Amino acid sequence: LIALAHRILDGDMRGIARAISVIDNELPEKEALIDELFPYCGRAAVWGITGAPGSGKSSLVDLFIENKRRAGQRLAVIAVDPTSPFSGGAILGDRLRMQRHATDDSVFIRSMASRGHLGGLAGATADAIKILDAAGFDLIIVETIGVGQSEIEVVELADLIILILVPGMGDDIQALKAGIMEIGDLFIINKADKDGAAKLKTEIEYVLNMPSAITNLPKPPVLLTSATLQEGIDTAVQKIDECFQQLVHSGELRRRRNRHLQRELNRIVMQKVRALLDERYNLTQALGDWVEQIRSTDSRPYSLVNAKIDTFIKELNGLC
Amino acid sequence: LIALAHRILDGDMRGIARAISVIDNELPEKEALIDELFPYCGRAAVWGITGAPGSGKSSLVDLFIENKRRAGQRLAVIAVDPTSPFSGGAILGDRLRMQRHATDDSVFIRSMASRGHLGGLAGATADAIKILDAAGFDLIIVETIGVGQSEIEVVELADLIILILVPGMGDDIQALKAGIMEIGDLFIINKADKDGAAKLKTEIEYVLNMPSAITNLPKPPVLLTSATLQEGIDTAVQKIDECFQQLVHSGELRRRRNRHLQRELNRIVMQKVRALLDERYNLTQALGDWVEQIRSTDSRPYSLVNAKIDTFIKELNGLC
Repeated sequence: LIALAHRILDGDMRGIARAISVIDNELPEKEALIDELFPYCGRAAVWGITGAPGSGKSSLVDLFIENKRRAGQRLAVIAVDPTSPFSGGAILGDRLRMQRHATDDSVFIRSMASRGHLGGLAGATADAIKILDAAGFDLIIVETIGVGQSEIEVVELADLIILILVPGMGDDIQALKAGIMEIGDLFIINKADKDGAAKLKTEIEYVLNMPSAITNLPKPPVLLTSATLQEGIDTAVQKIDECFQQLVHSGELRRRRNRHLQRELNRIVMQKVRALLDERYNLTQALGDWVEQIRSTDSRPYSLVNAKIDTFIKELNGLC
Repeated sequence: LIALAHRILDGDMRGIARAISVIDNELPEKEALIDELFPYCGRAAVWGITGAPGSGKSSLVDLFIENKRRAGQRLAVIAVDPTSPFSGGAILGDRLRMQRHATDDSVFIRSMASRGHLGGLAGATADAIKILDAAGFDLIIVETIGVGQSEIEVVELADLIILILVPGMGDDIQALKAGIMEIGDLFIINKADKDGAAKLKTEIEYVLNMPSAITNLPKPPVLLTSATLQEGIDTAVQKIDECFQQLVHSGELRRRRNRHLQRELNRIVMQKVRALLDERYNLTQALGDWVEQIRSTDSRPYSLVNAKIDTFIKELNGLC
């Protein structure tokens, strides 16, 4: 374990890959490994990139990597994939495009799927970020497919959030956009060569300028890019870097990271409590019995759970 | 409360709306209300409809409503909206289209957002389904925007799941499709008048026919519709009804509903345990203190939580 931690701190790519597999498979040494690396975390900038499917996120990330490589930075990308609860299997899709960087020793790309994480995908991703951070990457990009609540949870592990939008994807893209609007530190309208990009920019700026009690942070910039034409990329990267510097200087970065740590501690507690309930009361088995009881008697769900929890507590008290 | 339960059982629309607000706002009477209604549940068919943004889900649902109204059925639609954790506010977007049915006394449409549900959106939606079921609706449609893990959780509350796809939405739609493929009982390719619909159908059927250890259920049908041209709607509804009948006759419906109930009991337990941890140990406050401790000393996240949980247990044992 200590050996693995040292390989990570040395930036050894195979050691890093192995460590992330430890996380992914929830091996018992996970906790000690993360705790060992924890003091070395906090140096990387973490960007969260999200947006609707088809918005060209992966192509943009690919160009961001190129830009940052020219500046001599070492980068890691975590591509978070939605997967069915049955099959799992992270599907890279057009992220394969990024694979042209895979032979570059300073770029680490890893896909993470939601299957089999007791603590949820957000917990696993948080731990993966720590490994990459301790490994000395300058920039960690967390990219998600999709825009659901769990994607938001994942992207909220980042220091700053970049929302990718595209013109002309129909009404419910607009609804989505409005729904996730407030989590963005920066907005990028990709495919800016398409009709409607300028209009979309105006609309977003209008919404962003509405009076809001939520934040006194500076208004998020709204940028135009075209990944296909490779336009607007350098400006976008520059604006993102500026945004990060603002977060550092205003103290907001520290506040955010503390908030993230707090959320993470909560996740760990709840995951451990669940394991404890299984160990002490065989909860998973009990749940099946309760279903039987509800189906075959006049038991009702909430009353039953309330009664059972009372029993748990009494039993627990009776243990000593 | 008993009065409200009676109004629901009588199918009173305003009573139903009030009950769903009780759920939405997690009012204290929620549990007793659901337990009261529980014996009257299980008669409605519950369809879950999901698919990528822009796939025309809402237009299809609108036409499904029309079809079912012609057959004299009473229907309820729960439109589940992704919302930022900050703003909340369910955004109806182009679901407004469905509102033409809002004056119809036999159609109930309600939007649900994820904000502020301690037990999560899935828990709130499960309770809303029970209210509508007890209210005697023949069919309850749960429609989600987005395709993330939390949307899957919501749509999995349904008896059967309909996945809406569209041709030509780019590579990552295909990746998404593959990722959520295995949860679909039926696949509908909407916008079938567009290029690539037949090709997409062939591709999906190819994937569905790959050997799989997952299920011995019949292969899901892949249907073509065009909401805009109003084509394929009646056939689609007929196939969905057939699929539902198969689930009934094979016993799969009963198994699924038991699985759903079990998952729900787990959700309720964990929600109550969290509340208990707050009540007994002021967990939310403690989490903030732990962040301080980690930042200012050499404490590490997992070790700290493990130590605290040990203390919890000892204290709990010491209570008696």
